[in-house]
Amino acid sequence: MAEDEHVLRPIGTVRSPVKDPVDEGWGTIESQIVVEPGLRPGLRGLGEFSHVLVVALLHGARFEPERHLVRRPRGLADMPELGIFAQRAKDRPNPIGVTVCPIVRVTEDGLTVTGLDAIDGTPILDLKPYFPVFDTAPNARVPEWVDRLMAGYF
Amino acid sequence: MAEDEHVLRPIGTVRSPVKDPVDEGWGTIESQIVVEPGLRPGLRGLGEFSHVLVVALLHGARFEPERHLVRRPRGLADMPELGIFAQRAKDRPNPIGVTVCPIVRVTEDGLTVTGLDAIDGTPILDLKPYFPVFDTAPNARVPEWVDRLMAGYF
Repeated sequence: MAEDEHVLRPIGTVRSPVKDPVDEGWGTIESQIVVEPGLRPGLRGLGEFSHVLVVALLHGARFEPERHLVRRPRGLADMPELGIFAQRAKDRPNPIGVTVCPIVRVTEDGLTVTGLDAIDGTPILDLKPYFPVFDTAPNARVPEWVDRLMAGYF
Repeated sequence: MAEDEHVLRPIGTVRSPVKDPVDEGWGTIESQIVVEPGLRPGLRGLGEFSHVLVVALLHGARFEPERHLVRRPRGLADMPELGIFAQRAKDRPNPIGVTVCPIVRVTEDGLTVTGLDAIDGTPILDLKPYFPVFDTAPNARVPEWVDRLMAGYF
């Protein structure tokens, strides 16, 4: 293994009714995250938060530089040509997803969330409590194409 | 390598005036993220956003289950005993940091941000534009200890 490579092992797995990748309609999906048995004590106190940051490994994604490094979001003709670091597309150099999810409940073996845009079987790398003081950027600005792209997402 | 292990390679590196880990005072720090030469076209369009989600590999962290799986934040006696997934501490099963940073400028070789809580030399795994519609949780609730813990952070 090269010196600059890092090995990560999932802390859990997604159980979702969504079995194949889709681009939209994740908002109302309810998913379970089943946490590895040895790490379940790490959930203590998470249920006191309303939201969790879910860090997922998008295992079905494949980054091909010539196709994905610069592209139009979802290949749409009315979108500008953008670098992958200006997009949330899943085919990234490192296929990591970060999603803010409302917590439905924390259970003995994991948690139930809504809005997780990860298909059934997706490995989970980390769970973090959502701290508004860290994670909310008041007055954040986005370019005009974002609102057009996101119109049907949720 | 075991079947459930995943290899990630950094897309860039932090250049920060902070050389050793500290727990507080990151808010005004200005850092550079130098992106790998082959991936720099991926920055196109990022400068139109005000904020970026920086996904870092906290390479100095060491997770020891008996010390870090359940603990009081920063070891403070007035904090409750909490699981690691209810905390933002760096010693996690997968040492991944997610930080929302204001973008100062995007340059040819990377970008300059403020508030990145990662020391000099930290590998960066991903950069994502901050989409308020995804990343802001209006009305997010946190337990009472969060405000006490974060009082001196920025």
